[in-house]
Amino acid sequence: MSRTLVVIKELPEHLRERIRTTAEQHGFQPLFFSSVRPAADALREAEVVLGYSPRIPSLAPNLKWFCTTFAGIDLLRGPDVFPNPEVLVSNSSGAYGVTISEHIIMVTLYMLRKLGPYEELVHSHVWKNDLPVSSIKGAHITLLGTGDIGTATAKRLRAFEPASIIGVNRSGICPDAVYDSFIPAQDMDDVLGNTDILISSLPGTPYTKGLLSAHRLSLLHDQALIVNVGRGIVIDQAALVQELQNGRLLAALDVFETEPIPEDDPLYNCPNLLITPHCSGNMSLPYTVERVVDLFLEDFERYCKNEPLLREVDLKIGY
Amino acid sequence: MSRTLVVIKELPEHLRERIRTTAEQHGFQPLFFSSVRPAADALREAEVVLGYSPRIPSLAPNLKWFCTTFAGIDLLRGPDVFPNPEVLVSNSSGAYGVTISEHIIMVTLYMLRKLGPYEELVHSHVWKNDLPVSSIKGAHITLLGTGDIGTATAKRLRAFEPASIIGVNRSGICPDAVYDSFIPAQDMDDVLGNTDILISSLPGTPYTKGLLSAHRLSLLHDQALIVNVGRGIVIDQAALVQELQNGRLLAALDVFETEPIPEDDPLYNCPNLLITPHCSGNMSLPYTVERVVDLFLEDFERYCKNEPLLREVDLKIGY
Repeated sequence: MSRTLVVIKELPEHLRERIRTTAEQHGFQPLFFSSVRPAADALREAEVVLGYSPRIPSLAPNLKWFCTTFAGIDLLRGPDVFPNPEVLVSNSSGAYGVTISEHIIMVTLYMLRKLGPYEELVHSHVWKNDLPVSSIKGAHITLLGTGDIGTATAKRLRAFEPASIIGVNRSGICPDAVYDSFIPAQDMDDVLGNTDILISSLPGTPYTKGLLSAHRLSLLHDQALIVNVGRGIVIDQAALVQELQNGRLLAALDVFETEPIPEDDPLYNCPNLLITPHCSGNMSLPYTVERVVDLFLEDFERYCKNEPLLREVDLKIGY
Repeated sequence: MSRTLVVIKELPEHLRERIRTTAEQHGFQPLFFSSVRPAADALREAEVVLGYSPRIPSLAPNLKWFCTTFAGIDLLRGPDVFPNPEVLVSNSSGAYGVTISEHIIMVTLYMLRKLGPYEELVHSHVWKNDLPVSSIKGAHITLLGTGDIGTATAKRLRAFEPASIIGVNRSGICPDAVYDSFIPAQDMDDVLGNTDILISSLPGTPYTKGLLSAHRLSLLHDQALIVNVGRGIVIDQAALVQELQNGRLLAALDVFETEPIPEDDPLYNCPNLLITPHCSGNMSLPYTVERVVDLFLEDFERYCKNEPLLREVDLKIGY
């Protein structure tokens, strides 16, 4: 009996074909589904699954490796997600840098250049073109999170000639020369007062929860811009709402404490806030889907040779 | 009697001070005004003027050099603007690359990533995040106009890893290695069919008028994006409206055949169109104002030494 690989994700035919070829080379039978329910029978046999639903592991008693198509693994950290704690878990970190960095540059310029107010003027047929704007050129930028997303963003920001790009992560160890300098998260307070643009791509973990506290937000100077594409819980959202309502800060948020945003949430009426519906890193960009498959197949080859996975994650620490 | 330099443009004190110091070193008396009317007496004595109104030259019988704070000189090309055809004319080309390139990247990503539709969804409190998007990565980009604006844009686009950046200008001579290849404008038709993003920063001249004709627009493939920050007359606007109404092309236009856009213009109801009110290159970015003064003072030193100006323009050809 051949081993079973289940893929639960709509994929274009050329990518299914690539997975099929590699799987069969290694004695796997690949089965493809668009959603979890029709995959139920196949999951009972599955040794390896590429998918994203946290319902998958409990439907797959023979599962040895679960690769999520997402970069964030917070959905997989519930106590009942993995009945078998021995299952290898990996993510698709590395697939989202291109799409999310483009989102970050887009919303940063949107806020700095007042595109929202300009859209309203045009909508009202008012011809006015002298709103004061600001620029990435000469800006002091702080990136919280220096993985694939932070580094792809830093590379693009560099071309806009900012005054500085500072990377912040847990270790304070610099992964890439694209950063001007590098600090551990506990020293973050030292740079917030001189930050014009603060960008977070941090995952949601016990360590990152509430990292951007009311106190830290208060250290930012007036009219500083916060961009969040990581997880909503990293920011004290009530404190940020207060700062926005006071007109002191600007923000472009793609992630929130609760998603979808509750109907009566004060976010909906905050000035100087661009809300996007957690769309920065979706697989709606074809390139991202290609990358997810590239990265999965790279780790699949390693799995078949009993080598350590490149993107294995630790559910306890959260990435 | 000292020579007179008249500046008609609101400037921060530190820039007035820089102009004052340099002017006085060369035996000029600098006089500063925010608008033309209160400057009328001073203009009668003026040898050099930094300003932008086309009314200025006819009010300045002793004028020898007029430096416009704009990059485009189309407003100065009317038959009655310069009573004395011997007056030197220069522009501020080189001051706008930073601000306009940031505008171009912003609107390009806005269109590719469907930020307009996402804003509408969020406005209606609909949580949907799987609209198909596209990317600068892997895109074929054609830049019409390869001066300061085109080249500053190409440098920023490069960081997004496009498939190609082709520069198009009159000569077909490459000004900067940032372009992958380079063609003269008469060969433009050869590349339009393989262009995903077409960006024009061309000035308005007899040569550029209607350059993007209905025929050339038809050569672009479906869902190609046109960005125009140069002059509106470069595009056959009626033909573009037709393409937009048919859902075939996308556009982000900052300039138009008639500005402000007439109240009943079909542009206001075109799908897949982002309209901005000629705000891409305003001096509302402080850096731009600094650069205008830098460039003026550079040419001012040359003027005082009887050296040729670096940014002298030819009113007949239009740049």
